[in-house]
Amino acid sequence: MDKLAIGIDLGGTNCRFGAVKADGTLVCQQLMPVPKDRSHKGIISFLCSGIEMTKKKAASESSCIGIGAPGIVDYNNGSIVRSPHFRDWHNFELRKNLEAACSLPVALDNDANLVAAGEAWLGAGQDTKNFILITLGTGIGGGICIDGEIFHGDKGFAGEIGHQILFFDGRKCDCGSKGCWETVVSIDGLRQLIADSNDPRKEKFLQKYHRGLDSITPHDLHKEASDGDIFASLIWKKFGAYLGAGIASLVNILGIHTVIIGGGISNAWDFFISAAKKELSKRTYEESFEKIVIKKALLGETAGILGAAGIAFKMKNS
Amino acid sequence: MDKLAIGIDLGGTNCRFGAVKADGTLVCQQLMPVPKDRSHKGIISFLCSGIEMTKKKAASESSCIGIGAPGIVDYNNGSIVRSPHFRDWHNFELRKNLEAACSLPVALDNDANLVAAGEAWLGAGQDTKNFILITLGTGIGGGICIDGEIFHGDKGFAGEIGHQILFFDGRKCDCGSKGCWETVVSIDGLRQLIADSNDPRKEKFLQKYHRGLDSITPHDLHKEASDGDIFASLIWKKFGAYLGAGIASLVNILGIHTVIIGGGISNAWDFFISAAKKELSKRTYEESFEKIVIKKALLGETAGILGAAGIAFKMKNS
Repeated sequence: MDKLAIGIDLGGTNCRFGAVKADGTLVCQQLMPVPKDRSHKGIISFLCSGIEMTKKKAASESSCIGIGAPGIVDYNNGSIVRSPHFRDWHNFELRKNLEAACSLPVALDNDANLVAAGEAWLGAGQDTKNFILITLGTGIGGGICIDGEIFHGDKGFAGEIGHQILFFDGRKCDCGSKGCWETVVSIDGLRQLIADSNDPRKEKFLQKYHRGLDSITPHDLHKEASDGDIFASLIWKKFGAYLGAGIASLVNILGIHTVIIGGGISNAWDFFISAAKKELSKRTYEESFEKIVIKKALLGETAGILGAAGIAFKMKNS
Repeated sequence: MDKLAIGIDLGGTNCRFGAVKADGTLVCQQLMPVPKDRSHKGIISFLCSGIEMTKKKAASESSCIGIGAPGIVDYNNGSIVRSPHFRDWHNFELRKNLEAACSLPVALDNDANLVAAGEAWLGAGQDTKNFILITLGTGIGGGICIDGEIFHGDKGFAGEIGHQILFFDGRKCDCGSKGCWETVVSIDGLRQLIADSNDPRKEKFLQKYHRGLDSITPHDLHKEASDGDIFASLIWKKFGAYLGAGIASLVNILGIHTVIIGGGISNAWDFFISAAKKELSKRTYEESFEKIVIKKALLGETAGILGAAGIAFKMKNS
């Protein structure tokens, strides 16, 4: 029997481990909270224990490991250059350290790139050579797939699509710039859209949220819209317009017409997608717009571990 | 002796023809005004006569033709989908028609892509696998070079970088969108920066231009700045900031760190490049910014014909 690959999706709060067969079957998976000790040593030890538990659960040996991490990953070096969730990490050689600790070959990439790799292998990108993957969540994750492969740019930094500028003089972004796409198209962005709204229905809407704006989740806003709240629907439309504008820039730059959207916020699909397409139609050439296909991501929360396992198998077989 | 390739750079006003050896030597070139008859038949007849004259001038036979055209080019079909300078052309099958008329194989691409191809072959992109080429003129031309090849996207529409959005609610752009990068970073953009300025020195500056704002050229503005005019220098700094912001978005999206800038406006390099780099430093991660190399294009007005000849040779040898 072919050995399995362990795919790991390391997030800021939780880490998902999966044992995956070479044909893409997910044998088992588990979610573990990332421990408080986020030192290099602490994380390596945590990852090793997760790997061991996953192997045990799968009742099989594994031959390789793939891991996706949030932040800027130097793909060639196998290091995390910087990460929003692990602020003390600078040029952390995760690949080398994990290989030494678990005695298996390790492939490392940015987390959104591995969601794209997963969708390319087993999900919404299977039939498409080129696509742009967008994950909507705390920020915007991006992966660009060209000719069936994740495009890394010079060093692995490609796909930071959330930091394209949409408002030259916009709000400050965590990255240090201003007016980045993800200042409006993200969880905080949604809250900001509420805060900035002059709609008379806003006050009534906010009365339901005594704990303040920051307590409102995309799930709340989705539920409100589903329940017929007009203000919530307006916010989703605004969100959709900003989403569409950023997609228009990407399509114009890349000439890639398939766009796959995933991430938690995408659950509210029906409330923002028309506005996104309308904005796209206004901001791309007709001949380009008519070729654009926007798809939902298919793999949900397992995309990252499947993509991670996928690049591990590829590395092993190359 | 190896036969030559004829490279053609078709513009809205003039068309440049060049006879090029396989080693990149430009044997001869000529500039011809594009005739008033811009019908499909009229243009094909014009191109054929230019090709014949160029062959005569080079005193040699040619084996293939490469041509760059402004607008959206379907690279696979060899057709011009639409062109700002030839508004009646829609899905004009230029490649097929020119091949039939001149009995030689023809390669067609977007003009800015061929500037990038020229710089990759013989100019500032020779030592770089990946780069972004930007031409600054009436609009922004763009070419993305990946692994030594021009990246076309799905159909050949890639590289419309001037139509990334920099101001969500910005000025109307010729493309139908609003706030595109080229609404500020272009000849008209420079004039608009003057018009929008609140600087007290503006009135005195404008007094020198009795024929109005539209008579001011980038060359004028460059000369004024060179002569010490502070207002002109301020406009170039503003231009540089907008240039830098758009480059930041491209670097963040593509993870490509070499940027080559050409086109007529780039002559004023010394007056805008510092402001561009300053803006870039504010809008990219430190680890990304320190890798960015911004170069001047090297081939000037011959880049397009050299790139066109280059793709013609490639097509012939493939």
